[in-house]
Amino acid sequence: MKSIVAEVITIGDEILYGQITDTNTQWISAEIDKVGIKTIRKTSIGDQESQILGILEEGFSRADILLMTGGLGPTKDDITKKTIAKYFNDTLEINKDAEAFVKDFFEKRGRPFTEINRQQAALPTKCTYLPNITGTAPGMWFEHNGKILVSMPGVPVEMKYLIEHEVIPRLKAFFELPVIEHHIISTIGIGESFLAETIEEWEDQLPEHIRLAYLPSFSQVRLRLTGFGDDRKIIQEQIKIEAEKVKPLIASYIFSESNQTIAEAVGELLKSKNATLGVAESCTGGNIAHMITLIPGSSAFFLGGVVSYSNDAKMNVLKVKQETLTNFGAVSEQTVKQMAEGVRITMRSTYGIATSGIAGPDGGTADKPVGTVWIAVSDGKTTEARLLKLGKQREVNIEYSSVAALNLLRRFIN
Amino acid sequence: MKSIVAEVITIGDEILYGQITDTNTQWISAEIDKVGIKTIRKTSIGDQESQILGILEEGFSRADILLMTGGLGPTKDDITKKTIAKYFNDTLEINKDAEAFVKDFFEKRGRPFTEINRQQAALPTKCTYLPNITGTAPGMWFEHNGKILVSMPGVPVEMKYLIEHEVIPRLKAFFELPVIEHHIISTIGIGESFLAETIEEWEDQLPEHIRLAYLPSFSQVRLRLTGFGDDRKIIQEQIKIEAEKVKPLIASYIFSESNQTIAEAVGELLKSKNATLGVAESCTGGNIAHMITLIPGSSAFFLGGVVSYSNDAKMNVLKVKQETLTNFGAVSEQTVKQMAEGVRITMRSTYGIATSGIAGPDGGTADKPVGTVWIAVSDGKTTEARLLKLGKQREVNIEYSSVAALNLLRRFIN
Repeated sequence: MKSIVAEVITIGDEILYGQITDTNTQWISAEIDKVGIKTIRKTSIGDQESQILGILEEGFSRADILLMTGGLGPTKDDITKKTIAKYFNDTLEINKDAEAFVKDFFEKRGRPFTEINRQQAALPTKCTYLPNITGTAPGMWFEHNGKILVSMPGVPVEMKYLIEHEVIPRLKAFFELPVIEHHIISTIGIGESFLAETIEEWEDQLPEHIRLAYLPSFSQVRLRLTGFGDDRKIIQEQIKIEAEKVKPLIASYIFSESNQTIAEAVGELLKSKNATLGVAESCTGGNIAHMITLIPGSSAFFLGGVVSYSNDAKMNVLKVKQETLTNFGAVSEQTVKQMAEGVRITMRSTYGIATSGIAGPDGGTADKPVGTVWIAVSDGKTTEARLLKLGKQREVNIEYSSVAALNLLRRFIN
Repeated sequence: MKSIVAEVITIGDEILYGQITDTNTQWISAEIDKVGIKTIRKTSIGDQESQILGILEEGFSRADILLMTGGLGPTKDDITKKTIAKYFNDTLEINKDAEAFVKDFFEKRGRPFTEINRQQAALPTKCTYLPNITGTAPGMWFEHNGKILVSMPGVPVEMKYLIEHEVIPRLKAFFELPVIEHHIISTIGIGESFLAETIEEWEDQLPEHIRLAYLPSFSQVRLRLTGFGDDRKIIQEQIKIEAEKVKPLIASYIFSESNQTIAEAVGELLKSKNATLGVAESCTGGNIAHMITLIPGSSAFFLGGVVSYSNDAKMNVLKVKQETLTNFGAVSEQTVKQMAEGVRITMRSTYGIATSGIAGPDGGTADKPVGTVWIAVSDGKTTEARLLKLGKQREVNIEYSSVAALNLLRRFIN
């Protein structure tokens, strides 16, 4: 079967000049990868007609599918729509469905429906209108010599809605796509190069049609097995066999066999034990609570958190003893243990976890340099603490400490 | 003066297939933009020799500078280094400085220095070695017919270090770059299209060499004025004049005249008043505290936060009254006001802010649908609350509510 390939194209000076971060292209290629469409190139260009016409020419010569985002906004620098129309020798006309929707969108929000907004409903006559219920810029679907061009707004929420509800289903119907199966093994606490060496022999014996990817982020590395073929049952079976071979080699590092975050994995573990959690955060400053509460339904196991940035808060809310802070300091094993024990009582939870450290860039001392972080977990009977020695980047230290504290809880429960 | 243009190239299947999010290219183009180097194209390709050789050919034909990241890792799928060597008819040899550094890097961390790690010090003989103190993969600088190719690791922390400490200084020395001045006006609470209409006349009269960019994110829109020329003094003066013209048109929406986040702006405001803050979060789940504590030195004005996910926590820690929760519910004006007042007392801070809402996707009711969020601010004498009616996306609602609560405090103080 001929494999179907795509290019992802981002249009907009604001992306090109790095004024905003583009998360769309990664998300898009991940989504189409799941249905067996391989991205062969991603390109980001500016809001100039010549560049847009050029990439359409280039793209159609290389790929079966061009997925384009950006340049559909109401401001005058957005020219994607009329340039695509020009490429197809087409004209723009107000699309009645689109106009009705945009009008309703503004009325619902009690905002004036201006002419500039109405023009967002003007579409090339040759395109299929893709309704976008999340915003005011519609999506556009073009068929061109057996190939597909899709133009979508650059706003992530809007693009995601269109890809999920309009584009993927239409691509599945239009092309004959291969069968693809993924299996993810999420590890934590082992570096990529050491993981690679540990499983090298196994990796080398993988069959051609099963691909392995390393997806590292902080102290987590996801192993993704991807199998291609025609028969889903066979591929699933083969992937399962390979997964069972590798798992014993890295058992203690595995925290999930799906694409879960460590917070999601810990959440499931807590739910399975009918247990609850309270979090006391000093150096992580609320990031652990944030990671947990990003999970829909997390209130089932998460009772609450305390961000104790001041010693007052540590003493008043978490009942850390004055003399502990005086004798050992806020960043110490003694303090972090009392924080974990205290938040468990304050939140009336089964478990309490805590972090206290020096995130940096300032605040380090000779014996407690920037990157010194204590983490702890308590169930009321036992309290365990661990010392982390991290680097100088504040953001990295916050993220790494958050992940480590959640992993400490995971290992404590298991 | 001939303008110097660059292309940013990302190498790696993991980016191409969307397995990891690429934040590097945006960051790189933003950094070079500041020194007057315009990015004309960004391309992401896979770890195949043909693709890498192809993009080098293409890139050198279009741009003066090629900034390349990725494909320098220790795992066997990383082939950038040897492919670049092939392109320049060069060979790889162990670079003594690089080897000494990598060896030391592993010894310092008490990790074994394996052959796979030693190979990271093998570099093309024609390149200038760019020391990377943040990791094990060195950067490489090539001069080729008056043009520049830089190859860097894809790990953001490592790439950023190399760009700041090695690449930008070398580019400034190698090329004669134009003078560029930026001025940012950060607004909050006005949508992009309405902002655009409000300042349209002013925008239309901007001189050719002063560029305006809209940088929207959630309820914030940054206006960036960029001036080009030869004389810094004159450009600064002209930008200042234009900024003073537009500011009165949007005064109440401006929260900063730099690239600050709303959290940074609020932090500065609090410090200037010697005031402190406590945060009570229900639906934002710690995100406000996280946004604040990402700021180095935030302990100067941030005393702490409470993530009160359970009613118990609302009552025990924040002293919300039982009957308030019973009569009006957790998501109500009455509750969110008591949360703001309570956290102010608990944290002994000048101000308290609070959020309580239904972030979604579930938990909505007929009278309180998903996206119903109450925010409040209190100084002990006065307490103000505001109702937000947001959408259905949990992550968006959390981010939007956090920003709105910080802005409520900003307006309360001003």
